[in-house]
Amino acid sequence: MTELIRAQAQAARGATRALARADDAQRRDFLHALAEALRADTAAIVKANEADLARGRAAGLDGALLDRLLLDPPRIEAMARDVEHIATLPDPLAATFDARELGNGLKIHRRRVPLGVLAVIYESRPNVTVDVAALAIRSGNAVLLRGGKEAIDSNRALAASVRAALVSSELPEDAVQFVDAVDRESTRLLLAQHDLVDLVVPRGGAGLHAFCRQESRIPVITGGIGICHLYVDAAADLERALSVIRNAKVQRPTVCNALDTLLVHAAVAADFLPAVFRTLAADGVRFRCDPAALRLAQGLPGVDAAAAGPEDFDTEWLSLVLGVRVVAGAEEAMTHIEAHSSGHSDGILTADEALARLFLERIDSAAVYWNASTRFTDGGQLGLGAEIAVSTQRLHARGPMGLEEITSYKWVIEGDYQVRA
Amino acid sequence: MTELIRAQAQAARGATRALARADDAQRRDFLHALAEALRADTAAIVKANEADLARGRAAGLDGALLDRLLLDPPRIEAMARDVEHIATLPDPLAATFDARELGNGLKIHRRRVPLGVLAVIYESRPNVTVDVAALAIRSGNAVLLRGGKEAIDSNRALAASVRAALVSSELPEDAVQFVDAVDRESTRLLLAQHDLVDLVVPRGGAGLHAFCRQESRIPVITGGIGICHLYVDAAADLERALSVIRNAKVQRPTVCNALDTLLVHAAVAADFLPAVFRTLAADGVRFRCDPAALRLAQGLPGVDAAAAGPEDFDTEWLSLVLGVRVVAGAEEAMTHIEAHSSGHSDGILTADEALARLFLERIDSAAVYWNASTRFTDGGQLGLGAEIAVSTQRLHARGPMGLEEITSYKWVIEGDYQVRA
Repeated sequence: MTELIRAQAQAARGATRALARADDAQRRDFLHALAEALRADTAAIVKANEADLARGRAAGLDGALLDRLLLDPPRIEAMARDVEHIATLPDPLAATFDARELGNGLKIHRRRVPLGVLAVIYESRPNVTVDVAALAIRSGNAVLLRGGKEAIDSNRALAASVRAALVSSELPEDAVQFVDAVDRESTRLLLAQHDLVDLVVPRGGAGLHAFCRQESRIPVITGGIGICHLYVDAAADLERALSVIRNAKVQRPTVCNALDTLLVHAAVAADFLPAVFRTLAADGVRFRCDPAALRLAQGLPGVDAAAAGPEDFDTEWLSLVLGVRVVAGAEEAMTHIEAHSSGHSDGILTADEALARLFLERIDSAAVYWNASTRFTDGGQLGLGAEIAVSTQRLHARGPMGLEEITSYKWVIEGDYQVRA
Repeated sequence: MTELIRAQAQAARGATRALARADDAQRRDFLHALAEALRADTAAIVKANEADLARGRAAGLDGALLDRLLLDPPRIEAMARDVEHIATLPDPLAATFDARELGNGLKIHRRRVPLGVLAVIYESRPNVTVDVAALAIRSGNAVLLRGGKEAIDSNRALAASVRAALVSSELPEDAVQFVDAVDRESTRLLLAQHDLVDLVVPRGGAGLHAFCRQESRIPVITGGIGICHLYVDAAADLERALSVIRNAKVQRPTVCNALDTLLVHAAVAADFLPAVFRTLAADGVRFRCDPAALRLAQGLPGVDAAAAGPEDFDTEWLSLVLGVRVVAGAEEAMTHIEAHSSGHSDGILTADEALARLFLERIDSAAVYWNASTRFTDGGQLGLGAEIAVSTQRLHARGPMGLEEITSYKWVIEGDYQVRA
């Protein structure tokens, strides 16, 4: 196993030079070839996926997990279209920046270059195999893909389509390496290849992120954990605030940018919170409330509200549960957010611009919102066209990471035989 | 010790909010206060430094190391001026970028914010204590300073001046934490504080960098190791090439951007290399040569040239030693550089623009040069005004890191109660 993973990392590293010399037309050709390969290989992918699903059912996976695993022809077509979309984005390697001429006549600029070799370690959803390969190659990076055991057959089939597309577009087949292993030891070995791999991107739960941070000798982008807040100020448009809260909590509760805790100004709580409770309860939401919020929930028919436990305001729910707290005002709301936010996405709903500016300045999360749903923290939604991950660390990239966020740069210095004084 | 380091990291983290709220005028006030404090404390700093020097002499440190350690009134005045210079640079936190309005009316931009808490681990030179504190505070970052044991008394005195300046400029005194410990275990403990520290910057030799990469649970900027190359093409201006080579090798041989290996096109080697050998030998340079270069060195009076050993072309000399190799042409030179460079600074000397463009494109080092000395890889020289480190990794920042390179950003999203479809 040690030799195999080392050999795969070396093969990926070895492919970087040929990749760096490929022009953008060739990288886009690959994406079109990949979309076609996925369509042509649909039957084989579905068959492999059925093996994963059968194993999942036998292991007692719940419906939501089985749904995450599922690849059917419409989902494969959607993957192919996502890949074609990545081909329409601007070339991330075209940029040069900070060009200037120094007093001594040296001309300098910085030029975008690929990061090199990425290792992406992911759980369950097999479409990550295709998304990440597409983003990596478009940005000139080689990539090691290490998926979860639930999706191993699907991932293997998708990786075969990816490599076929590399060959047909005359890019090095070794640029995408599928690590065909599912034990922790293989991940640990991968995380030790610091001389060959430039960046590790875990995509999964908190346990995977902690494991990577603990074991990796390679820089890791951690993220994806969102304990997200909305604060409803006394000066909010309460009717539209309710629709934003409902969107943030209900539209897709299992993702990291979904709402976890609602904070409401005491002056409007009695008017506003009963409507929140009734509306969201109809969507199946249950509530964990501070004492003041709980008093407003009690007796409302069909509302499932309980007193918040000591850790409920530090929990990423990933489900139809919502923490609710009444605060004396914006200061208490910001103090709560500073204490409990995971630094992913937090917002204020108010018509008070000065207060909103203070909130946007002071709350130090990857994405801060004024009058909008937290669900927009997403590379596609924020105009990046696609995303490889959402970072909640502060180094290199923060928030959604698109193509540019998986590049580096080099300094180019042109002179006339200048020497340093 | 565990509690002490944890407490210092917590204190630094606790200071970040007050720091983030300070405006740039206050951060600049601190720099002026620090310059004045250094001047006022000169006698105490010199006295502390004498204790370090005495210990160093007793331990048998060589002259170069003792010189690195020395702080006298002119050097303290130079430090004060460097600090004042940092106050003249543009505010690194003023920038907003990538502003746009999306189709749904959301207005988004990214805004620079401090990284948070830095930990800088450094060896020998005590001025790093002052430089790093100044750069950190100007960019709104708290910092943990962990210097080497040789300079412990000097560092302690300088840290006292830094904290006095924080107090007098009404910034949180806890924003700069001097870790008053010199054992490896204290470094290990520091590297474990991933929930409190955002970035580790080692400044020292290869051993320190490897230790940090191995032990850290916090992202580390590795760098500072330069195996640097110049390739002299057949189309170079040989007279001026010689002055560039001399500058790159001799001007300051102990630093990472000094020249390590000279590659010379075979067509000009017989003309050019004897002049290189004679000129640099007069500066005290010794040579490690491939067979073709060695033949050209033999018999030259005063030239100390030996056959290169198997690791000589993979050595960062940090001294007056130069590897020399004759190559058949640019292709062989680039292949050599790709195999042996540490990715710091590599250059080509030629009048052939097409060849130079190829070299600048293909050689993937942090800084690539056409007709200039490698000694310019430095934040001050390349227009950043100052530098906290030189990165040879690809994540976050590459090459010289100035104020902007120790910031992060956040996404600011302003809307009118938009929800995600």
